[in-house]
Amino acid sequence: MKLSVIKIGGHVLDNHQALDTFLDLFASVEGLKILVHGGGKMASHLLDQLNIPAQMINGRRVTDEETLKIITMVYAGYINKNVVSLLQARDCNAIGLSGADGNLVRAHKRICTNPDYGFAGDVDEVNEQLISLLITSGFSPVIAPVTHNREGQLLNTNADTIAQEIAQAMSTCYDTQLIYCFEKKGVLANITDENSVIPVIHQNNLGALLSEGIILDGMIPKIDNAFRALACGVQQVSIGRWNDLNDLIRGHCGTHIQTI
Amino acid sequence: MKLSVIKIGGHVLDNHQALDTFLDLFASVEGLKILVHGGGKMASHLLDQLNIPAQMINGRRVTDEETLKIITMVYAGYINKNVVSLLQARDCNAIGLSGADGNLVRAHKRICTNPDYGFAGDVDEVNEQLISLLITSGFSPVIAPVTHNREGQLLNTNADTIAQEIAQAMSTCYDTQLIYCFEKKGVLANITDENSVIPVIHQNNLGALLSEGIILDGMIPKIDNAFRALACGVQQVSIGRWNDLNDLIRGHCGTHIQTI
Repeated sequence: MKLSVIKIGGHVLDNHQALDTFLDLFASVEGLKILVHGGGKMASHLLDQLNIPAQMINGRRVTDEETLKIITMVYAGYINKNVVSLLQARDCNAIGLSGADGNLVRAHKRICTNPDYGFAGDVDEVNEQLISLLITSGFSPVIAPVTHNREGQLLNTNADTIAQEIAQAMSTCYDTQLIYCFEKKGVLANITDENSVIPVIHQNNLGALLSEGIILDGMIPKIDNAFRALACGVQQVSIGRWNDLNDLIRGHCGTHIQTI
Repeated sequence: MKLSVIKIGGHVLDNHQALDTFLDLFASVEGLKILVHGGGKMASHLLDQLNIPAQMINGRRVTDEETLKIITMVYAGYINKNVVSLLQARDCNAIGLSGADGNLVRAHKRICTNPDYGFAGDVDEVNEQLISLLITSGFSPVIAPVTHNREGQLLNTNADTIAQEIAQAMSTCYDTQLIYCFEKKGVLANITDENSVIPVIHQNNLGALLSEGIILDGMIPKIDNAFRALACGVQQVSIGRWNDLNDLIRGHCGTHIQTI
C-alpha cells in the first residue's frame, strides 16, 4: 500500500492563508498519509514576549529548559491542535501526536558537551505499529517535532529528521514516499531563478552540486536525510513547493532524489 | 471488560512531587484506563506574564481568542505531553489527545449571548470507536480539556464534563467507573473536618445535602455530572483524594455516588 509522509515547514504555518491552502491540498491527497510539521516563528515570538533570552551557538538556538517548555506548548499544543482541527473541518480524520504519545518517536538527548545544544533529541526508534494501527483505521497522523527519551524527558527534534525516520520505519510495510514541502519549486541550480529547478539529484551528480556550492546551507541536511531515507527503503523522496503538493507526489514537478 | 475513567484536577498538576506520586498510582491501576486532566495555574500565570487581561463574568474567566490560544498551548501542549512522557517512563503506554484529535470529542460553542463566555465548548459527541481502538491496543489515553466543533474551531471545555461524557460513551461497551480525584478525602459533611466523608450519596439523601448547604459551590456540578453519568450507564462514580486512587477504585474510601 502507498503511504505519503509529507513534511511542512514553518513558513506555511506562519501564514493563515497559505496554511488554509496547504491543508486543502493535504486533505485532498489520496491514500494513506502522514503530516510532519515544523515550528514557525510563534515559539521565538513567545520567547521574546516572555523575555527568555536566546542562547545561540553557531547560529543555532540552544534548547534550554524554558525554551523546551515553550516549544512543547507551541509545537505540540497550539500548532498541532490547530492543524488537526482545521483538517477535521476538511473531512480529513487527522490525529495529532508528539513523539512521546504512544512512544511514537523515542530519542536521546544529543551527546555533545561542547557545544551543548541542551534538550535536542536524536531519534532512536519509531513505533511503526502505532502508526500502522492509526493509518489502517482511517486516521492521518499529524506529528509535532517533539520527542521523548522514555525516561520522562521531552526533547526538541528536527522535523525533517522525524519525517525521514518515520518514512524509513514505515517503508518496511508500505510503498513510502517522503515529500519535503517548502517555498521554492525545488532545489534550484541558481538560487535567484525559480525556474532553475534541478529535476533529479542522484549519487552521480551530488558531488558536483556540493562542490559547486549549489547545494548549501539548510539544503545539505535535507539532501542527506533524503539519501539516508532511500538507503533504508523509502521509494521516493521529493522536494518542492507546498502549493504544488499533488503534482509533487505524482512526480510532475520539484526535485526528486534518487539512488541511481 | 472494566474501564476506569480517572479525572485529575489542577492542584496535582501544579505540584511536581504530587504529580509524580499520582502518576505512580495511575500507572499501577490495573485494567483499561483513561486519564482526563484539568488545567492548573500555569495558563493563568502565562496570561499574566503576557499581560493578557482576564475578562471575568460571574467569577468565571471568559475564553477570548488569546486565552484560548494559551489554554491550547498549556493544556494540550505542555501539561498533556509532560504527563504522557512521565507515564511512558513508568511503562504506562500513554497517548495524549485533545478532543480535536481523531474527532475524539466534538462540541459546540456554548450558546449564551448574555453573558458570552467566548470559546467555551459544550460536548455533543464522543468518538468511542477511537477510544476503544486505543485501549484494546494497550494504550492509555490522556485527554486534555480542549475540544473542537469540527468546523476548525478549538474550544475550552470543562475537564469534569469531558470525563463524564467519555465515561458515558464508553459504558455501552465496558463496565465503566468514573473517578473524580481531588484534594479532599471525599465529599465532606463538615468542610473543616477531613474525617467527615459522606460515604454514599444517592437520590434519597441528595436533596437534604443540597438544602443544608453541605454540597455547594464547585461540588454541585461534579455531583450533577456524576448522576448524569450513572443515568447513562456508568456503573460507579467515586469522588476522593488523588493519593488514595487505588482504594478509591476498589470502593474502600471516598464518596460513592449511587442511583439508589
